[in-house]
Amino acid sequence: MLRTHTCGELTTKNINQKVTLCGWVQKSRDLGGMTFIDMRDRYGITQLVFDMETSKQLCEEARKLGREYVICATGSVEERSNKNLKIPTGEIEIIVEKLEVLNAAKLPPFTIEDNTDGGEELRMKFRYLDLRRNINKDNLLLRHKMSIEARNYLNSQQFIEIETPVLIKSTPEGARDFVVPSRMNPEKFYALPQSPQTFKQLLMIAGYDRYFQIVKCFRDEDLRADRQPEFTQIDCEMSFVTQDDILHTFEGLTKHLFKTILNVEISDFPRISYDDAMKYYGSDKPDIRFDMKFVELNQLAKNRGFNVFDQAELIVGICAKSCADYSRKQLDKLTDFVRKPQIGAKGLVYVKCNEDGSFKSSVDKFYTQEDLKLWADEFKAEPGDLLLILAGEKDANRKALSVLRLEMAEQLELKDKNTYRPLWVVDFPLLEWNEESQRYHAMHHPFTSPKEEDISKLESDPGSVRANAYDLVINGVEIGGGSVRIHNKELQNTMFKTLGFSDEDAQDQFGFLMNAFEYGAPPHAGIAFGFDRWTALFGGSESIRDYIAFPKNNMGKDVMIDSPSLISEVQLEELGLKIVKENS
Amino acid sequence: MLRTHTCGELTTKNINQKVTLCGWVQKSRDLGGMTFIDMRDRYGITQLVFDMETSKQLCEEARKLGREYVICATGSVEERSNKNLKIPTGEIEIIVEKLEVLNAAKLPPFTIEDNTDGGEELRMKFRYLDLRRNINKDNLLLRHKMSIEARNYLNSQQFIEIETPVLIKSTPEGARDFVVPSRMNPEKFYALPQSPQTFKQLLMIAGYDRYFQIVKCFRDEDLRADRQPEFTQIDCEMSFVTQDDILHTFEGLTKHLFKTILNVEISDFPRISYDDAMKYYGSDKPDIRFDMKFVELNQLAKNRGFNVFDQAELIVGICAKSCADYSRKQLDKLTDFVRKPQIGAKGLVYVKCNEDGSFKSSVDKFYTQEDLKLWADEFKAEPGDLLLILAGEKDANRKALSVLRLEMAEQLELKDKNTYRPLWVVDFPLLEWNEESQRYHAMHHPFTSPKEEDISKLESDPGSVRANAYDLVINGVEIGGGSVRIHNKELQNTMFKTLGFSDEDAQDQFGFLMNAFEYGAPPHAGIAFGFDRWTALFGGSESIRDYIAFPKNNMGKDVMIDSPSLISEVQLEELGLKIVKENS
Repeated sequence: MLRTHTCGELTTKNINQKVTLCGWVQKSRDLGGMTFIDMRDRYGITQLVFDMETSKQLCEEARKLGREYVICATGSVEERSNKNLKIPTGEIEIIVEKLEVLNAAKLPPFTIEDNTDGGEELRMKFRYLDLRRNINKDNLLLRHKMSIEARNYLNSQQFIEIETPVLIKSTPEGARDFVVPSRMNPEKFYALPQSPQTFKQLLMIAGYDRYFQIVKCFRDEDLRADRQPEFTQIDCEMSFVTQDDILHTFEGLTKHLFKTILNVEISDFPRISYDDAMKYYGSDKPDIRFDMKFVELNQLAKNRGFNVFDQAELIVGICAKSCADYSRKQLDKLTDFVRKPQIGAKGLVYVKCNEDGSFKSSVDKFYTQEDLKLWADEFKAEPGDLLLILAGEKDANRKALSVLRLEMAEQLELKDKNTYRPLWVVDFPLLEWNEESQRYHAMHHPFTSPKEEDISKLESDPGSVRANAYDLVINGVEIGGGSVRIHNKELQNTMFKTLGFSDEDAQDQFGFLMNAFEYGAPPHAGIAFGFDRWTALFGGSESIRDYIAFPKNNMGKDVMIDSPSLISEVQLEELGLKIVKENS
Repeated sequence: MLRTHTCGELTTKNINQKVTLCGWVQKSRDLGGMTFIDMRDRYGITQLVFDMETSKQLCEEARKLGREYVICATGSVEERSNKNLKIPTGEIEIIVEKLEVLNAAKLPPFTIEDNTDGGEELRMKFRYLDLRRNINKDNLLLRHKMSIEARNYLNSQQFIEIETPVLIKSTPEGARDFVVPSRMNPEKFYALPQSPQTFKQLLMIAGYDRYFQIVKCFRDEDLRADRQPEFTQIDCEMSFVTQDDILHTFEGLTKHLFKTILNVEISDFPRISYDDAMKYYGSDKPDIRFDMKFVELNQLAKNRGFNVFDQAELIVGICAKSCADYSRKQLDKLTDFVRKPQIGAKGLVYVKCNEDGSFKSSVDKFYTQEDLKLWADEFKAEPGDLLLILAGEKDANRKALSVLRLEMAEQLELKDKNTYRPLWVVDFPLLEWNEESQRYHAMHHPFTSPKEEDISKLESDPGSVRANAYDLVINGVEIGGGSVRIHNKELQNTMFKTLGFSDEDAQDQFGFLMNAFEYGAPPHAGIAFGFDRWTALFGGSESIRDYIAFPKNNMGKDVMIDSPSLISEVQLEELGLKIVKENS
């Protein structure tokens, strides 16, 4: 090795040792007769000292070093007079006797500091420099540790990791596939997997019992802020289990990761039905670190002459603790907030529960103090609280109130970064109606099993059929989801029919799976976790991009390597393809 | 869980326990009043017993079960009278009290046995049934264990696993890329990585120091027998190291895997230069479990009037121990063997070293007993040995003799399956001349560094420049390879020029890497192991396909899912592509 130690390990225990370190020049300071250099590597920072008096030439060389030069320094470890107790190596320094420049460096286009001066685009173009910053290094280390811990836990539970193919077959169900033309099979294409779904089911049919894989998946979607065309899943499947078994098993994984990565003990995994999640939180991924459950007022508030409420499908609100002192301005701001087009409420009704027991509301004209008292009781509101109420179409109203609930939690500082509250959302609808295609789509995917007791409604009332499907939500973030699968051919056939597949299409696209069901398919169920998102949650960030070494931008571009890019005519010819120009 | 135990764990310790097992019907036997069923799962086989006398109905149900039915059986564990000590559960059986058919099964198209009656094509089409066979299950379990052990070892050595992108940029150097059209960026394509080479180098520049990844890679090659379009590498890179450091580090990984997976201690990792490997074994991946080194005879055998030898560039042979008693017929067979077109020798000269000290050869006409004695001494041959000698053009001759050496090892049973002899082949040539393109190609890849002392010959005599490149060979199989990389822009530029890149092409394809070299690139080096092949070696097989859950055939097809396949017109339109029909 070119070094004897890293820049993160020398302490007073090493005093008087002769050492050699390699790393990057983080910064240098000339103090008259002395030059100090902070040398950085992956493990930390160590201070190098050059003395003009005792070694003039070395000191002069050191003064020529620019930021981010790669150097190798040999010297002896000495105790610092001016200690820095914030870093593990802050009690020592190296009196350099030999200095070698391993590589020079141009001045980087932004500072390699936690608070860098580089904008996102610049940092993405020079991602290899951005990745030198501690914050990114910590993120990638966290990701590595999580993958090691997840694998070892699942291995300890008899799960085996099996690699499924990346070059598979395109199926129109679900999101859009990326496709790969096959040179050896003209006119034909592979597709990149959106998930290893069918393969993991085939592995269950093959008897593998407990499968997992930490695996790249691909979706050619128009990218929203926090989506990536390639992303990573912890993909799992089990045989001979019920939904309860799956939930328990993966509560185990969740506890293990919380304990080993964050040193947090998690014991409680409450469950809520999809219907209740929508009713009480207006969301299928409620953040339950704080309360503010929805309270519906249709019974109490209708038929008093307030037109808006009378015509509303749903009147529903939340109780914001101790906010009765909100000013006119603050309330107007909240009203503006819910009226934003992306939230879409028409207005906001408030009721202040004053400390003296009286009420003050924006609808005082229509409701008496007694009416408002009944509302407050319904909310279990106390003097000092503020009721915020929306009215309108049920689904839209719930969605809007859900956003307002999160906004109030933000204002009230209820989203404690160090509190983690997992929640299973269960009993999802099996299907959702799609206006565009005028047919039902699978809410999870077409292999999800309906609840036994709802199967009879598959033809008569498909929309009301509930699925054996579940999501793991932590602090309002959907970390994973899965379902008990269909494992019999007839039911799978019915499902494809309900989804509008013709027999031919079903056979063409999923024939291999339906055939496989005939050769002894065990009952099975599974789950997949969004590994990028779980890492981001543990890292305390909302952006998955910060936890991916080389992410793509919103146009699916890697601006560092300039990809995607044109390919040669020869390549196109070999593939038997021609580009259709947009304006031809 | 639907079961209390697996089919692999019950022993006499569990006698009298009430248990529930789930699994597949492996076979059933009706013995008059009793029916026995072998029930199989991933963990083993357990015998179920049904008694016509005590439970007639159950027994009749059991008699209706076909092979591969999925069942759930509850009963009590009892000691067998007729024990099978070959399997861990062979001392007990389950007296069944309750039987549930979880799923019926059609008769599988081949038997689910170690020695199946199914041909390869049929087994590939029904791969999910093929994977039920023990042999395949053991292969996938081996692969899983190796990946867990490799990861944990590298983690313990401070390597961190970092995922690099799958959607990258096409570069014409090396093998052909698979490409992926980008819908969001019309006319542009991603490429799938042949290896994460440039990304791992960028991670070194980013300061990550010790990187690894077990990662899928892709090559659109015409597939030879044992290649796959997608394959898996253990990909590694380190900074601040010399070639020696890399070799030592990965000897550590190799030892760890041998110890933990095969319980084999490996201590010796000899090194041989590429030149010596070619000279003494005619191969850059010599099998050194046995000796039979090449001996060159140009000095001793030329100019005695034997035209074939006189005109040959190289006369070279091996000594086959104790084969002097080979019959005329055996020798003719060897001659036919080396004359096969794919081996290409013109003929084979033999010298028998008789037990009485005399010699008998196919060239007795030209050489005296004294001549042949000198040859035998050169080979260090003993009475009873057989010399086998080829003559002709140097490279072709060495190649042919290399094949003969392996054939003789086979005949002499020298390829001991339980002996493992690793070998580093080092000092590869940097470049190799390509007749077709009339230019030098990189033997490893364009980022491999030349030996310091050879850099001056890069322009004058490129073919003689040696690289800091190394391969790990075990028992004649290339398990991995790598190199010390170039880490400075000027040298990388020179390298691209030597490879015939124009400045524009180099900038266009690798500009981001060359720019990165200017911002403080550390000295770095790396290696990549063929994970499929390493697993096959440990499994005792030569076919990587047996160690891949869902492999593709020689046409790159997955016959189970019927991929690649046609895609819809809509998909093509969205991608702005048109298929050029072959005959238009």
